[in-house]
Amino acid sequence: MTTKRIYNFSAGPAVLPLEVLEEAREHLLSLPGVGMSILEISHRSKPFDEIIEAAEADIRRLAGIPEGYHVLFLQGGASLQFSMVPMNLLPQGGSADYIVTGSWSQKAVKEAKRVGGVKVAGSTEADNFNRIPTQDELSLDPNAAYVHYTTNNTIFGTEFEYVPEVGAVPLVADASSDIFGGPIDVSKFALIYAGAQKNLAPAGVTLVIIRDDMLKRTPSSLPTMLQYTIHAENKSLYNTPPVFTIYVMGLVLKWLVKQGGLEAMARLNARKADKLYAAIDNSGFYKNPVAKSCRSWMNVPFTLPDAALDEAFLKGAKAAGMVALKGHRSVGGMRASIYNAMPESGVDTLIAYMADFAKRNG
Amino acid sequence: MTTKRIYNFSAGPAVLPLEVLEEAREHLLSLPGVGMSILEISHRSKPFDEIIEAAEADIRRLAGIPEGYHVLFLQGGASLQFSMVPMNLLPQGGSADYIVTGSWSQKAVKEAKRVGGVKVAGSTEADNFNRIPTQDELSLDPNAAYVHYTTNNTIFGTEFEYVPEVGAVPLVADASSDIFGGPIDVSKFALIYAGAQKNLAPAGVTLVIIRDDMLKRTPSSLPTMLQYTIHAENKSLYNTPPVFTIYVMGLVLKWLVKQGGLEAMARLNARKADKLYAAIDNSGFYKNPVAKSCRSWMNVPFTLPDAALDEAFLKGAKAAGMVALKGHRSVGGMRASIYNAMPESGVDTLIAYMADFAKRNG
Repeated sequence: MTTKRIYNFSAGPAVLPLEVLEEAREHLLSLPGVGMSILEISHRSKPFDEIIEAAEADIRRLAGIPEGYHVLFLQGGASLQFSMVPMNLLPQGGSADYIVTGSWSQKAVKEAKRVGGVKVAGSTEADNFNRIPTQDELSLDPNAAYVHYTTNNTIFGTEFEYVPEVGAVPLVADASSDIFGGPIDVSKFALIYAGAQKNLAPAGVTLVIIRDDMLKRTPSSLPTMLQYTIHAENKSLYNTPPVFTIYVMGLVLKWLVKQGGLEAMARLNARKADKLYAAIDNSGFYKNPVAKSCRSWMNVPFTLPDAALDEAFLKGAKAAGMVALKGHRSVGGMRASIYNAMPESGVDTLIAYMADFAKRNG
Repeated sequence: MTTKRIYNFSAGPAVLPLEVLEEAREHLLSLPGVGMSILEISHRSKPFDEIIEAAEADIRRLAGIPEGYHVLFLQGGASLQFSMVPMNLLPQGGSADYIVTGSWSQKAVKEAKRVGGVKVAGSTEADNFNRIPTQDELSLDPNAAYVHYTTNNTIFGTEFEYVPEVGAVPLVADASSDIFGGPIDVSKFALIYAGAQKNLAPAGVTLVIIRDDMLKRTPSSLPTMLQYTIHAENKSLYNTPPVFTIYVMGLVLKWLVKQGGLEAMARLNARKADKLYAAIDNSGFYKNPVAKSCRSWMNVPFTLPDAALDEAFLKGAKAAGMVALKGHRSVGGMRASIYNAMPESGVDTLIAYMADFAKRNG
């Protein structure tokens, strides 16, 4: 079977480890000892019990989740979490703090406002979201129902390099685009959610890590499917979960363990990001607009000296086996998403191509 | 590559056509001409545009959907539709009619009651749901916002053999367990929804076919992800859809076209169901409790003369290469789900095993 693979710099759905794809392929017609495809097995079957339990155990082990948290596998992506978080955690008459660092935080705010009170505790919109606010810049309400922030911003290429200090107020993070790119101190959070299609799995499953005291806030009047409590009580099996997507997530988690866990990923990701940013900064050709202390390890936007060169850059990249480098329409230029599964060789190939392109067009 | 496959009679997630699994496997590392796995490609990419557009076109062709309907690919299964339907279609102060024929209808009623007024327009609960109410038994409210019913009941093995006449009131169907098992006159419906994991795809995608006038009912105050209107305007790409699951659904749809479409499936399904019911009825050993005019073509429950034999029956079936025959816990006994993708040879194997088991234990 011949397989021509290329380097995929998409912001998500995104590249997956080749080993994971190979294992999924090997067993696609019949799981070993089961005789059915993972695409066909019941979510109430023993083989799936083992799959979802192993996935949860690996998540707990990789992230070092302390006792007192539930791990949920939901559907609807971060977009549905934008609503589920306030519907479950924001009591009538209460108010929540939101730190606004880009398009996704803005969408989270928009959905929370449909549910209750929202205060913007910090925003870098005036700086075109090219940086993250410092702790000192945050004006936090000690009575807030929770503080919400986006750990990494795929569009603007910024990332929190600190966890906001929020005192006794529960901290909620949308970690869709950098989850498990490095260690995470779960004990600082009341709720972490992540659409899995960037760093964890194919599209179709949402990871939620929720502290047990938060479960007590769920109003029983909510639609059943939107109640965290229901999903926690039913171990994510209240309804049929996305069986295959959870299976592939499980394979990615096993791969992460094999790579040495999240510390090892952080080292690899730092190395990949550092060399790409250095190539940009030292080129005299490419530019990255983000303050150095706020640069994302996952999404690296950069511009060429003249947007008229963009098309030629993308065309040449494609010919050299690299795709999905076009920047988000709201920012322009290029964007290289270099999640966990992007091999270092992909970054090296990109850097070599960039140098060559600059020389030819500089 | 050796592959030992068995007959999977699960009620869902359920058996898929072997050809579909083989094609998904063949291209799992790299879609032809794309160089990336379907598990990795962006939902905003040209290859995925082609996949989702082809899937929609095949759905429209297979079901003969007239103009004036949107086809949506959502997440959350029928369980989320139980809430989305009333949230979108039931105006404040209004009331909806529900026909109750089993556990799933009951769940739909429960969620609708959280939203607004509900009238039970018919129920066969007093008969243990072993039949479908006749048209004459329905007491329909001409002012209802809509009438909701479940076309096929997986647990009780009953199926509507008629489409309820509801006059000018919009008709809403949960068709999760028999969709595309035979022809469907979409023009009679305002909304049809189906969790896809029984007859259309792996778990993780929900098909919604909605008449355009229904889209005008969506209150703009709803969470964005729960608004049919948003998903219709964005062609199911408001947020990241379950890319792979839609891809496999597309393969199943192509397979259905190749089988000769829904008329051909109806003929095959009738043949499979008829011979299985005949084997039960003529056995003097097995029993099916459902009124003959209401028997499901998809889910065939049956009991043995003594529940003490159940375990031996299941064990022997497994040894003969057949699994997931255990009946739902609320009904007991056995259940053979024989969806589109269950080959006739699977039904024949089951019938032969049943005859042999009856002879040995009769």
